[in-house]
Amino acid sequence: MQQVVDFILEIDKLKAVTRKIRPPGLDRYENSAEHSWQIALLAISLASHAGAPIDLSRVVGMLLVHDLGEIDTGDTLAFVEGGWDERKAAERAAVTRIFGLLPEEQGAAFLALWQEFDQEETPEARFANAVDRAMPVLLNLSNQGQSWRENGVSYERVVRRVSGQIKAGCPALWDYLAVRLEEARQQGWFGA
Amino acid sequence: MQQVVDFILEIDKLKAVTRKIRPPGLDRYENSAEHSWQIALLAISLASHAGAPIDLSRVVGMLLVHDLGEIDTGDTLAFVEGGWDERKAAERAAVTRIFGLLPEEQGAAFLALWQEFDQEETPEARFANAVDRAMPVLLNLSNQGQSWRENGVSYERVVRRVSGQIKAGCPALWDYLAVRLEEARQQGWFGA
Repeated sequence: MQQVVDFILEIDKLKAVTRKIRPPGLDRYENSAEHSWQIALLAISLASHAGAPIDLSRVVGMLLVHDLGEIDTGDTLAFVEGGWDERKAAERAAVTRIFGLLPEEQGAAFLALWQEFDQEETPEARFANAVDRAMPVLLNLSNQGQSWRENGVSYERVVRRVSGQIKAGCPALWDYLAVRLEEARQQGWFGA
Repeated sequence: MQQVVDFILEIDKLKAVTRKIRPPGLDRYENSAEHSWQIALLAISLASHAGAPIDLSRVVGMLLVHDLGEIDTGDTLAFVEGGWDERKAAERAAVTRIFGLLPEEQGAAFLALWQEFDQEETPEARFANAVDRAMPVLLNLSNQGQSWRENGVSYERVVRRVSGQIKAGCPALWDYLAVRLEEARQQGWFGA
């Protein structure tokens, strides 16, 4: 029991990892804990649109743990170019440490979920990655492109960065977003 | 697709509902979205200790949606006495509105999870309620009783409020907490 308690208090630190998006209507930045909650519910809500049959409980598990490595590394804007291999290695070291706090069987199960998400090979991982990519786009679309404008991210970079994964994991979601992103471009909601 | 988007943006408001606990090390109060994320992971980590065999995916689903009614009502300290019937009715109206944004089948599934949690009759709901009750206790135990002291909550009120549900849903967790709560009493971490 103490191992589980040590783990749950360690992951409390994800509440302090801030992202680049402000939740619409709030002055502060979103943190990775509440982001993880929201995409778990987005995945459940979109499950019938997944690109292939999925085990939804594994998708939800992946989304709940996928950002825990940021406890040691911090969040990186999805549009940063380069440095991703080093970053992934650092996140992997972090989650190995954090899941290592748990009894071995449970820690191994979480690590397997984290790796499955990272490798993007199973239908579940592809769907989970699509949902993770789509959520900040949806928030930006409801926030007049706040983080795109603040960080100088162009329409072309957004499409290049998110379209492949969203199409692969949840084609109907991409069909929806493609239209909305074009509208946002016409509204001037992107950076230069 | 637009219905799912309307839902996911509506529930974004849970990030603005603050609780009485400060995440250890942070100056701000916890919000109900990140709380929901954390207890979903606590439930997965504790599943082998549940008081009865459970369908874990239903537990996780319940925990992810159980606080959504607070979008209209705000959070209420667990130790407030009285007014719970009115409050529950208001939360029920809120989740009926919010889940009503979704396609009918998905909205009904979420509402069923919310009601199952609220009724505390199934093994899954009892385990989920135990986890929900235990998390603020664990945070207070790592935070020198911050919300107990700030809100004048005594040792006796904590035990009276949480022991029955935690024992019923996760007996081993109560065995652990009973010892830690007694230690906290001796440290003076409670209100008068």
